Amino acid sequence: MRFGTKGREPVYLDDLSVGQTFASGPYVMEELRMKSFAAEFDPQPFHLDDAAAEESIFRGLAASGWLTAAATMRMLVKGELQIAGGLVGLGVEINWPRPTRAGDTLNVTSEIIEIVPSRSKPNRGVVKVRHTTFNQKGEPVQIFTANLLVFKKPAIT
Amino acid sequence: MRFGTKGREPVYLDDLSVGQTFASGPYVMEELRMKSFAAEFDPQPFHLDDAAAEESIFRGLAASGWLTAAATMRMLVKGELQIAGGLVGLGVEINWPRPTRAGDTLNVTSEIIEIVPSRSKPNRGVVKVRHTTFNQKGEPVQIFTANLLVFKKPAIT
Repeated sequence: MRFGTKGREPVYLDDLSVGQTFASGPYVMEELRMKSFAAEFDPQPFHLDDAAAEESIFRGLAASGWLTAAATMRMLVKGELQIAGGLVGLGVEINWPRPTRAGDTLNVTSEIIEIVPSRSKPNRGVVKVRHTTFNQKGEPVQIFTANLLVFKKPAIT
Repeated sequence: MRFGTKGREPVYLDDLSVGQTFASGPYVMEELRMKSFAAEFDPQPFHLDDAAAEESIFRGLAASGWLTAAATMRMLVKGELQIAGGLVGLGVEINWPRPTRAGDTLNVTSEIIEIVPSRSKPNRGVVKVRHTTFNQKGEPVQIFTANLLVFKKPAIT
């Protein structure tokens, strides 16, 4: 179930319901960016050096999981699900079931899992969204569940 | 309880015990890097523009949580806890209790929370580590719990 065909209008808590899905992407994982990101933030041999990566548990050069996460965020910010006030994650869980490889083309499917209106602050709620990032073979490379802060539509007074 | 004063020797599963702590850092959060990272991966007004950020829920320019996460990874890779074979996260949970601000100096304390030897693969286990990233005031900006893949020391045969 898609949230409309455009899906680019900012949405409020009232606009969301469990089961809605939203698409984002694509993002092409460039080998040079993989290596420069790793050099800055995650300088481990299996993210930097092809030969060392072949000998590692990844059996070949793998993107830092943090780059897969950051690339996913870029897709989400530009994707179908536009939340009024922005994408503000209160807490997240991430799993990386397989590595992202150089040249992979990624995309994301986001599904609304749960909606919990705030008891103490009636103008907002927490929306749990599962963002699954796929490679071009349709294999999940990241499963990222986020609790997002979402506001209700301001009443016209 | 510190793992030795040097703590830079690569460790195996057998070397770790619940309650050990390890230090990492510092990392200085530069405003220019905050904005360039946000422009590439998390282009939302509260990460990019001072005036817009003042009006946002963050009440001032805030680093993308993914930059705080990436900076934390950089500190960990260079930090006291050196795991033989590298820092390989199977799954993580992250909370950001407050924003990271321009000019903040971050550091990390890592604590071993749980150690679960693998039943099916006797040469490895999963170590749960809680990495808390603090700003220069000692306030936590990120709480990051990771399940790390850690190998036993190879037997000499």
